Amino acid sequence: MGIVTQRLDGAPVTAALDEGTRAALRTRSPTDPLPTLASVHRGVDSPFQFYRRRQLKAAEALGIRFQDEPLPPGAGPRELVERVRRLDADPSVHAVLVEHPLPDPFDFGAAIALLRPEKDVDGVSPANLGRLLAGRPMHVPAVALAAIDIARHYGLPFEGEPVAVIGRSETVGLPLAILLAARPPGPNATVTIAHSRTHDLRQTIANTRTIFSCAGKPGLLTREVVPEGAAVVDVGISSVPDPSRPGGSRSVGDANPESLEGWASALTPVPGGVGPVTVAELMRGTVRAWERLRTEGGGSR
Amino acid sequence: MGIVTQRLDGAPVTAALDEGTRAALRTRSPTDPLPTLASVHRGVDSPFQFYRRRQLKAAEALGIRFQDEPLPPGAGPRELVERVRRLDADPSVHAVLVEHPLPDPFDFGAAIALLRPEKDVDGVSPANLGRLLAGRPMHVPAVALAAIDIARHYGLPFEGEPVAVIGRSETVGLPLAILLAARPPGPNATVTIAHSRTHDLRQTIANTRTIFSCAGKPGLLTREVVPEGAAVVDVGISSVPDPSRPGGSRSVGDANPESLEGWASALTPVPGGVGPVTVAELMRGTVRAWERLRTEGGGSR
Repeated sequence: MGIVTQRLDGAPVTAALDEGTRAALRTRSPTDPLPTLASVHRGVDSPFQFYRRRQLKAAEALGIRFQDEPLPPGAGPRELVERVRRLDADPSVHAVLVEHPLPDPFDFGAAIALLRPEKDVDGVSPANLGRLLAGRPMHVPAVALAAIDIARHYGLPFEGEPVAVIGRSETVGLPLAILLAARPPGPNATVTIAHSRTHDLRQTIANTRTIFSCAGKPGLLTREVVPEGAAVVDVGISSVPDPSRPGGSRSVGDANPESLEGWASALTPVPGGVGPVTVAELMRGTVRAWERLRTEGGGSR
Repeated sequence: MGIVTQRLDGAPVTAALDEGTRAALRTRSPTDPLPTLASVHRGVDSPFQFYRRRQLKAAEALGIRFQDEPLPPGAGPRELVERVRRLDADPSVHAVLVEHPLPDPFDFGAAIALLRPEKDVDGVSPANLGRLLAGRPMHVPAVALAAIDIARHYGLPFEGEPVAVIGRSETVGLPLAILLAARPPGPNATVTIAHSRTHDLRQTIANTRTIFSCAGKPGLLTREVVPEGAAVVDVGISSVPDPSRPGGSRSVGDANPESLEGWASALTPVPGGVGPVTVAELMRGTVRAWERLRTEGGGSR
């Protein structure tokens, strides 16, 4: 009697989120500005073109304006800072994404700190991270929200349960751990934060029932590491070479799906799991930013 | 052949911190203002008079000015906000503490958010919590620093090791968990966050070698819960009735020292462990705030 591993498709979660986003957009009067999401990035040098195409497509489908903001070739930290300042000051822009991580000498942290929290739709500025930690969140990192919403949609055991977060990045692993540990009505989970330097990952997560993996390490999670019957939410997305694909690469998660098949109770696929839900969270966040700025008239500075 | 439980006295850690604070103060020229720490509280209604007396004594011994700022009897949230605003604007004040938790209708979170991060010496404002989470800390909660410094002083196994933090408060447990999980030169620990709703605390912390307890629950940690040979840093401080003491009460930690004697490898006492080290961290933080404001001329707003 083997375990049947449930495949946790992101599509129904995305559909539910988009329904809420559309409902909020129906409150828009003809004189209101269109909700606008600006995306700042390095242009052709950026390895994240794929995500932006997905964001553009989702925005168009919902009636959100997607404003592409590539930096000119050869631009440096000063151009990035100037671009963020301009978008922060522009009343026709409600939400701003800044590509990250960025290579040296770019300073993502310095640039994102210039954005008022109302427009920091991905919740990665110190102001929004501080609100999250202080228990008064405004925008929260979209990928952390997506991981929780997909787990909740499929009824995974994580509320009040022991869970693991693998990865301790400032913008994914740590915010997710804080959200998971939040008191009711938060998930109220007992959270173990593991990472690349954890000595014995298998032992560390042996008693957890749901594992949120944000390591960005293909093949990390196999049946040698994951406890039998645990559920895996695969938040890690990496690009691996694949000459058979257009572009020469494909996206993979931290989990080895072949190894976990018949072993894990459930697994989110990559692609098609947390990724599309994250895009839907960003769209919902953009509409919330638009609502908030419409109400408050510009936000805090 | 029992275990001999080492008593981890805070005094030598405090002495080492104070030595650094004194060295920094020797850079003061006669025309420089005295470093000044202001303490805002509810006056006679506050249950924390004991801590303030200790802060006053430590400040006087080091040459730091301690400015007592009791609110008038019957004061409410508006008086608290006005007091914080005034101290934030006062160039002769370098560091400000605000009593917390505060009963309704006081709003600690709203008041502390008005303080510029340079003066928030206990690192509990959203701005400082955000810097901590974003990996760019300025001031960090003093009690979390104290717990780490005492563990480091006595060479407890926590750097690169599995550790537990019991408690998930915004100002103690969560900041401590984030500090412990920080990449090298941070402690690089694998961190489990447990709390009051954790189903099976014994099982949850069974594989951890050092336990940081911030629950504020006297008697929580006994040999029935703590793994044999683990070290306990007792961060929880509660007041329990004791008619034999002046004032009718005494301070106790989360640990039951009698139960852990001969079982835990090490234990910080309460009182005399993390408490005095926390006061020394606040004094060091006050001098750092003074240095920073002297250099930057007023700080950020």
